[in-house]
Amino acid sequence: MSFQNKLLAAVRNAGSVLCTGLDPVPGAMPPELRQQYDTDHDLILAWCRRVIEQTKTGSAAYKVNLAYFEAIGPDAFVLLDEVMDAIPSGKVLIADAKRGDVPHSNERYKTAFFDRLGFDAITLSPFMGTETLAPFLGDASRAVYALTLTSNPGAEELMTRPFGKAPSLSAHIASLLRKCAAEHPGALGMVIGATQNKVYGPVMEAYPEAPLLIPGVGAQSGSISELERHLARHSGIPLINVSRGLSSFDPGSSDPWDVQIANKTALFNKAIQAISDRYLGEPDPPIHPSQSRS
Amino acid sequence: MSFQNKLLAAVRNAGSVLCTGLDPVPGAMPPELRQQYDTDHDLILAWCRRVIEQTKTGSAAYKVNLAYFEAIGPDAFVLLDEVMDAIPSGKVLIADAKRGDVPHSNERYKTAFFDRLGFDAITLSPFMGTETLAPFLGDASRAVYALTLTSNPGAEELMTRPFGKAPSLSAHIASLLRKCAAEHPGALGMVIGATQNKVYGPVMEAYPEAPLLIPGVGAQSGSISELERHLARHSGIPLINVSRGLSSFDPGSSDPWDVQIANKTALFNKAIQAISDRYLGEPDPPIHPSQSRS
Repeated sequence: MSFQNKLLAAVRNAGSVLCTGLDPVPGAMPPELRQQYDTDHDLILAWCRRVIEQTKTGSAAYKVNLAYFEAIGPDAFVLLDEVMDAIPSGKVLIADAKRGDVPHSNERYKTAFFDRLGFDAITLSPFMGTETLAPFLGDASRAVYALTLTSNPGAEELMTRPFGKAPSLSAHIASLLRKCAAEHPGALGMVIGATQNKVYGPVMEAYPEAPLLIPGVGAQSGSISELERHLARHSGIPLINVSRGLSSFDPGSSDPWDVQIANKTALFNKAIQAISDRYLGEPDPPIHPSQSRS
Repeated sequence: MSFQNKLLAAVRNAGSVLCTGLDPVPGAMPPELRQQYDTDHDLILAWCRRVIEQTKTGSAAYKVNLAYFEAIGPDAFVLLDEVMDAIPSGKVLIADAKRGDVPHSNERYKTAFFDRLGFDAITLSPFMGTETLAPFLGDASRAVYALTLTSNPGAEELMTRPFGKAPSLSAHIASLLRKCAAEHPGALGMVIGATQNKVYGPVMEAYPEAPLLIPGVGAQSGSISELERHLARHSGIPLINVSRGLSSFDPGSSDPWDVQIANKTALFNKAIQAISDRYLGEPDPPIHPSQSRS
């Protein structure tokens, strides 16, 4: 199945463009969970499984942030593999790796993330030029989300500044990506921070077919209505990622931490419903359980 | 010991600014070595040990390219740890990771590469802004080499193009890095490709104190004499990295593959001797074997 078809099917089956981000931090997990496990490895796996359980009905995709896995030590990739096994088939699996190297090195990262770990998509930096993305774009069943306009304050040093004739470096990158996408079978999308609503208009316009991965709506409170307005003119399918905004919990609440996550997922899906509705159409038949990620 | 002191001591002890890059590719290794091992893990470890053995006298630093390790599968980080144990103490250990994420994620990569794996330095992308480098710059014993001007053709899409009042995006980044370096105790260097001799002058001038990590001299044949001329005006200490240029071998040669590596290391060190000589001065006493990397 092509990435684009898998993405559309996943959104329709979830009824939502929500992507749940898994950024496991052992020290920030509920004390009642922490005291049940002796190792960070087991604790993180249990936490991820519970978060996945509470979010899976309403999530089209899962994004795992490699930084949080690599921080646990030598068995980072073993743990990552176990977490991926806990994600139901049919969900879009995104490695938030933000790698970016010369083509012969990127070829090896492609082996690691697409061939070995079985991710559908990866986030990459386009900083070294779009030629570096090519090793990941050989296969229509996979996708790259290139960092194009991020939501952190440091984006103002480079990305939001004018570049050549483009209003921003990000808008220039978007037009390079559009050209690159036309030359490769793989899907090439953009990461665009929702907090950048003063800047992202021309970036989306420069590459209107791009699948989008949009962080910055949850904990960073980017405007949903602004996003909705701009997405109405964009033909690529968006995924709206929320990580801490879903998985953080209030220790003073009468609800258990995992129920809080389920409630927040439902609330968030309601908040973005008008965006999700644009892509729903007729739901696809549920994906057969035998279609595993491998 | 501060990174700057460790770097200077390592260069003086090796008599060279050579950094040997380890980019292990099982399929490209000598057949006589390949048939001795059943797993890629064991093969890579044996190959790295032999390369280190043949290069250690003349190398100030080792750079491991994470892409090549992650490609082997789930025990990538276990293997990486074993390879690092084979590198003699006193050498500068560089993780060629080219990560670049928001500060709270970069904090986790810092845990992985500095605290857990014990690298002295890491390569990072400054694309998301210099604020993202801060988590790695809290400690004078560690360094960041920020990708500033790379040697691949794709660098011409963004890095070598004019940006604001700077002659290139790279020169602009160099001045941002210089400002960032002044605000943090950690060492902040630049990766500058040797093939970019038409562009790198103003980049080095914008941040003349920067430690440099310079690829592109070996297999990519960047000019050594041009480099020497520019480094004469640069106060930061350079490391010149060669990966495939040292570790590739000629199967038709009468010399065994590892002897070829030793020979190439000696030849290469002769070629860059005039550059190395600038930093040698009085040699430091040899580092005591009990000073391990942990």
